[in-house]
Amino acid sequence: MHADADIPTEIQRTLTEFLDVQEQRLAELGPELAEQVQAARDATSGGKRLRPSFCYWGFRAAGGDPERPILTAAASLEMLHVSALVHDDVMDSSDTRRGAPAAHKRFEALQRARSEASGSGGDPVSFGIGAAILLGDLCLIWADEMLHTSGFDAAALARASKFFDAVRVEVTAGQYLDLVAQASGTSDLDLALRVLRYKAATYTVERPLHIGAALGGADQHLIDALSAYGLPLGEAFQLRDDLLGVFGDPAVTGKPAGDDLREGKRTVLVAHAVDHASPAQLAEFERLFGRAELDDDEIQLLREILQDSRSVQACEDLISERTAEAMEALDRSPVQDETSRKALADLAIAATSRHL
Amino acid sequence: MHADADIPTEIQRTLTEFLDVQEQRLAELGPELAEQVQAARDATSGGKRLRPSFCYWGFRAAGGDPERPILTAAASLEMLHVSALVHDDVMDSSDTRRGAPAAHKRFEALQRARSEASGSGGDPVSFGIGAAILLGDLCLIWADEMLHTSGFDAAALARASKFFDAVRVEVTAGQYLDLVAQASGTSDLDLALRVLRYKAATYTVERPLHIGAALGGADQHLIDALSAYGLPLGEAFQLRDDLLGVFGDPAVTGKPAGDDLREGKRTVLVAHAVDHASPAQLAEFERLFGRAELDDDEIQLLREILQDSRSVQACEDLISERTAEAMEALDRSPVQDETSRKALADLAIAATSRHL
Repeated sequence: MHADADIPTEIQRTLTEFLDVQEQRLAELGPELAEQVQAARDATSGGKRLRPSFCYWGFRAAGGDPERPILTAAASLEMLHVSALVHDDVMDSSDTRRGAPAAHKRFEALQRARSEASGSGGDPVSFGIGAAILLGDLCLIWADEMLHTSGFDAAALARASKFFDAVRVEVTAGQYLDLVAQASGTSDLDLALRVLRYKAATYTVERPLHIGAALGGADQHLIDALSAYGLPLGEAFQLRDDLLGVFGDPAVTGKPAGDDLREGKRTVLVAHAVDHASPAQLAEFERLFGRAELDDDEIQLLREILQDSRSVQACEDLISERTAEAMEALDRSPVQDETSRKALADLAIAATSRHL
Repeated sequence: MHADADIPTEIQRTLTEFLDVQEQRLAELGPELAEQVQAARDATSGGKRLRPSFCYWGFRAAGGDPERPILTAAASLEMLHVSALVHDDVMDSSDTRRGAPAAHKRFEALQRARSEASGSGGDPVSFGIGAAILLGDLCLIWADEMLHTSGFDAAALARASKFFDAVRVEVTAGQYLDLVAQASGTSDLDLALRVLRYKAATYTVERPLHIGAALGGADQHLIDALSAYGLPLGEAFQLRDDLLGVFGDPAVTGKPAGDDLREGKRTVLVAHAVDHASPAQLAEFERLFGRAELDDDEIQLLREILQDSRSVQACEDLISERTAEAMEALDRSPVQDETSRKALADLAIAATSRHL
């Protein structure tokens, strides 16, 4: 395809074609596997396709030929993302994702229907969790298969593999840091910043750029320049996402209002509030934060503490600073192609805007 | 290394070296990640190294040069296996693995100790499950990294990747078939046979042989011959494993006696019993099978039903037939190297013997 094509549409087409092939392969093992493929189809539908977009424009920034199968390679990052989301929802016991039931909830409903129809059978909750763990595993395996069967030659794939290995490990390690942070029962700004970096920033922006650029034949100078743009931008993106998790419109985020407050997500926003709230605010915050049954008034109270402690403003300031830093790095970068420069600048705005 | 070296020892050395490198990489993300690496070290210790052994001898059977880094490539199958075991233990809620606490139990204990030390913190059970999901993900990613950074050239890796992709998907799909079988609440011989094939037979014997042979430059004729040996042998191996899950000595299996009966594993052995038991035996069997709290007398009762329905004998007969079939296929195979022939014959005995 060419640069002017609609990237999200092309990514969707690539994912659908890949899953069509997998469905045929898996049918040989048994009709039951159609349930996994259908779950993968639903989980890979929608979303903003940010990671494939950064991968695509990293490739173009390196002077890659848009007639090469870059969108198949880029779609592998969406498959990786879905793997992480499916396992994340199991770990967080999140019931919804993008406005639909999370994968483990849909498998749970499938088993419940089967048990009711047959009058016997295993626990639907356990089945749902087990099936979702396996769906995440399949998507993790498929992400790799999509990349290395994308059609690039062995030398290009070897260059990209280094970054693909890095991002897979980083996002998994970042998830573990997040798990440790959530389980600690306290807010630690250093740990929250490392979660921000590895669970989100490198994974959403920097590494997708690197993978695309490596496939396009980038030298180390360009790789470094893409880090200088991508890392601060990734942090700004996640800070925006954290704000949306508390203040976002459910119709846009696909999650219930204030969901992150019920979950007790120990974000940079929360760490700032804990450091800057008055003793009375802090006591109130810690009393409510992370309780699954918060009502609307309690959500509102927590939001006010985040506002009054100037933590929201501090995050907005950080987002502005980091985005500006990314834009300056883009200006200084050796990227020659004007279309790529423009696309990367647009992506920086899109990834950090209030209406994401 | 050379063929005469001790394969399990070499596999252990390779895994340790790989994890040493990963530990250094992960230390940059934070000291917390040492917990994941330590869990990976423990989970990759011990075991019979069957899959790497089949991979090694598939390579040698194809005339591969033993000075090549075949054991690093072969160790990737052990890493894949550990990934599957860690997730399997979460799905089955198995508390022990190889006589030690399962990964999710060890992370649970870690969090419990931290919560007690700090007087606050998250639920240890959820933490344990989440951390084990991530450990399985890391091992799945690392398996791939071990293979493609093993040192083989791009052409050899491209040949092996096809089989590596296949085995990863097959074992995950086989796990899903198993989950469906366990949740069904009934025994279905066809489904039990497909679980046997994909969760165990292709994964333990056939695909490891293929991966090694492909790295060694095998033609399709040898690949087919290795299937003719490997598939029946893999089935015989798993049938033996199923018998050991019911009748095995806990000191050897590393699991409590009769554990598969408490778990309600719907194996071929069980499907045979359900098809052949008398109505009175069947009623007794279904009343007890799959109950977590079975005492020794109840375990003994279930064992007697499996014996009296001649299901144990039927499995022993199947093991003998399949092993003989594998041996004949080995005799007919185009494998030239006598050392490899001898090793494959020895492995067939070792993988199916009563004292495994």
